[in-house]
Amino acid sequence: MTVPLGDARGLARALLENAGLPPGHAETTARAITLADAWGIGSHGLFRLPYYLDRMASGGHPPDAALKVRRDTGPLVLLDGGGGLGHWQVAAAAATAAERSARYGVAAVAVADSGHCGALGVYALEIARKGQVGLLLSNGPAALPPWGGDRALLSTSPIAAGIPLSPRPAVVDLALSAVARGKVGAKARAGEPIPEGWALDREGRPTTDPREALAGMLAPLGGAKGFALAFMVEALTGGLVGPHLSTEVADPFAPERNAFPQRIAHLVLALDPSWGDPGDGAATRRRLAALADSVVEAGGRVPGTGRPAPGDLGDDTPIEVDRGVLDDLRARAERLGLDVDGADGEKGPV
Amino acid sequence: MTVPLGDARGLARALLENAGLPPGHAETTARAITLADAWGIGSHGLFRLPYYLDRMASGGHPPDAALKVRRDTGPLVLLDGGGGLGHWQVAAAAATAAERSARYGVAAVAVADSGHCGALGVYALEIARKGQVGLLLSNGPAALPPWGGDRALLSTSPIAAGIPLSPRPAVVDLALSAVARGKVGAKARAGEPIPEGWALDREGRPTTDPREALAGMLAPLGGAKGFALAFMVEALTGGLVGPHLSTEVADPFAPERNAFPQRIAHLVLALDPSWGDPGDGAATRRRLAALADSVVEAGGRVPGTGRPAPGDLGDDTPIEVDRGVLDDLRARAERLGLDVDGADGEKGPV
Repeated sequence: MTVPLGDARGLARALLENAGLPPGHAETTARAITLADAWGIGSHGLFRLPYYLDRMASGGHPPDAALKVRRDTGPLVLLDGGGGLGHWQVAAAAATAAERSARYGVAAVAVADSGHCGALGVYALEIARKGQVGLLLSNGPAALPPWGGDRALLSTSPIAAGIPLSPRPAVVDLALSAVARGKVGAKARAGEPIPEGWALDREGRPTTDPREALAGMLAPLGGAKGFALAFMVEALTGGLVGPHLSTEVADPFAPERNAFPQRIAHLVLALDPSWGDPGDGAATRRRLAALADSVVEAGGRVPGTGRPAPGDLGDDTPIEVDRGVLDDLRARAERLGLDVDGADGEKGPV
Repeated sequence: MTVPLGDARGLARALLENAGLPPGHAETTARAITLADAWGIGSHGLFRLPYYLDRMASGGHPPDAALKVRRDTGPLVLLDGGGGLGHWQVAAAAATAAERSARYGVAAVAVADSGHCGALGVYALEIARKGQVGLLLSNGPAALPPWGGDRALLSTSPIAAGIPLSPRPAVVDLALSAVARGKVGAKARAGEPIPEGWALDREGRPTTDPREALAGMLAPLGGAKGFALAFMVEALTGGLVGPHLSTEVADPFAPERNAFPQRIAHLVLALDPSWGDPGDGAATRRRLAALADSVVEAGGRVPGTGRPAPGDLGDDTPIEVDRGVLDDLRARAERLGLDVDGADGEKGPV
């Protein structure tokens, strides 16, 4: 069913605030979640919110977690997320990365001990909107086996990149599995089978049962090469930043693990495109524009440009949300006696 | 046929020096080329040398090209390669990146206006052997169409990563095409057909003729996701560093383009793993070791560990080289009257 974006964001914000997240963090998180829905990535949108709320209530995402600076060399910043929900933490890391790369030409901002942050492309876009190039990696619950191996060791190993382009940035946003794990979860919730080729069961056999797949593994993109890239992502996140390797990350869909912080690692790299030529970056801008134009002329599409830009989205823009998800969230709000802010800032029923 | 590694390196070094490359650069280049052969990546080994030599003679790889510093912020260094051959330039960039990341925690070293550098994994390994994490990207001749598009715009978009691990580093080294372009070139040289699924002809139709494939396009890894990753690589190399987008890079297998410098872009990123925990990096080393161990225990292989390490290779280690390639190189040396240094430093016939 469809719901106005502003209403969905208000509902998410109210539930997150009620769960104890400070208002600013709740707003940032609600924006990231509903932007994923507006982009058609329902697996990283409101579908996730009930799980986040249950984990927040049980200690898996302490709502009062602070983001602390552990190390700061200028171009490199290491943050510690205290096990908190990832959205506002990665948003902060991305903002710092963009600021530092503008100053030093390159920057790395890592968030250790964080939680799931939804769609990495949300933060890649923000870096690109600030005129910087962003590259983001995360780990997460183990879902992929090594090539030729028989058990899940690596997360779906998401990679996102934001490239400043006029009139709108390019955003690469993908997982190194045949499909994202969240898509399997959404199918499980909807009670639908998954297509062949998406996943393997606990013993490594192909399956079309999403529940067996959630208990099993996803297949790496393109076989051995996809595994090698996923190994790289895991080494740069769980290995370099930590503290958890993907095998130690709590499954967000397993209620019995709701009390365990995921302790996920995020790594944000940023580069300032203005150093690429002796002038003010005009030659770099021309090359990037020529690249984007050539993709369109060849009949292709620049990554991410099929998604509506935040500036194109109004509070009354309808977004598609699973009815069961929305019913669940509205029932929670009603049980809690929450008045939910509408898009226009007026109080109103959900 | 097989040839001792030391003899092959001596032959390559002598031919490169004769073509005008300074001795140090010739040695670095010969080592990179023959290490690729020792790793079984013949498409980036001695097979390439005749093409390099012809391009050096014609101006496509000016042998006296210098590597100049265009910008240096400390953590970020932009070099200009003057159109020269890429091996020694990327080796120098990798050494600088490792030194700078040890100092700042993160570093980016770009080489603008360079040439083909062989297998990126060679340089990723060197960074990892210095205890730093390396991530390398290059562009090159256009070979991949955008997803759904009808002409080649992106290079095979190589990505390499070196991860310090004991007793030996992990090295990810792959192209974002179904196969590397050099493999198609090797098949063309050998007069053999290519398997289905490797490549498309000029009009985008599947082909098993390597000559049609060389004039046509390769297929991106895993479809749309492979294209998106290749777009990211092109944006970070040809776009950000330049000066040539892949569509402008001279085809190294086209003699009529031998006078044109390729003006390829390389980007080397490096991270210091010792900042990942409050101590001296011991926790990071433990996590990386646990990751590698888990891959082996699950029945998989840590990327790059199937290749012999340079320390395992002696000058008398036999490497497999195509007979036609070796005959060509030996005939060139004979025509030029070169005495070729053997592995033991003594002069001897090729």
